[in-house]
Amino acid sequence: MTETLRVTGMTCGGCENAVKLAVGKMPGVSAVDVSHQDQRVTVSFDAELVSLDAVKARIKGLGYKVVAQT
Amino acid sequence: MTETLRVTGMTCGGCENAVKLAVGKMPGVSAVDVSHQDQRVTVSFDAELVSLDAVKARIKGLGYKVVAQT
Repeated sequence: MTETLRVTGMTCGGCENAVKLAVGKMPGVSAVDVSHQDQRVTVSFDAELVSLDAVKARIKGLGYKVVAQT
Repeated sequence: MTETLRVTGMTCGGCENAVKLAVGKMPGVSAVDVSHQDQRVTVSFDAELVSLDAVKARIKGLGYKVVAQT
């Protein structure tokens, strides 16, 4: 499944990249698209292997805020 | 021990925070100070619990470059 999260606190391309790599490394995640300008993280994942909550926790663990699921 | 790494690619406070949290979470790491302006990550750690190489790998895993140890 693919979900889009609204994430604040990413203010440059380096932030985008950090989120993309950290989430992309999670087992079960097949694709991650990040835009700090749109405050958006779109993640494609296998829900049998990883939960959306785990993805959110990973993003929050880097200091960014998941404000709402769009 | 405390080591200072030169790290490039961090271009804002969000990057600093991501590195600080990710490294600070590693077992054996007691303190992390990051400045994107100085391209610097200073880490205090117990070398019996974690290696400097592991710290470098964690930073690289977020897409930043460890260019040299100062």
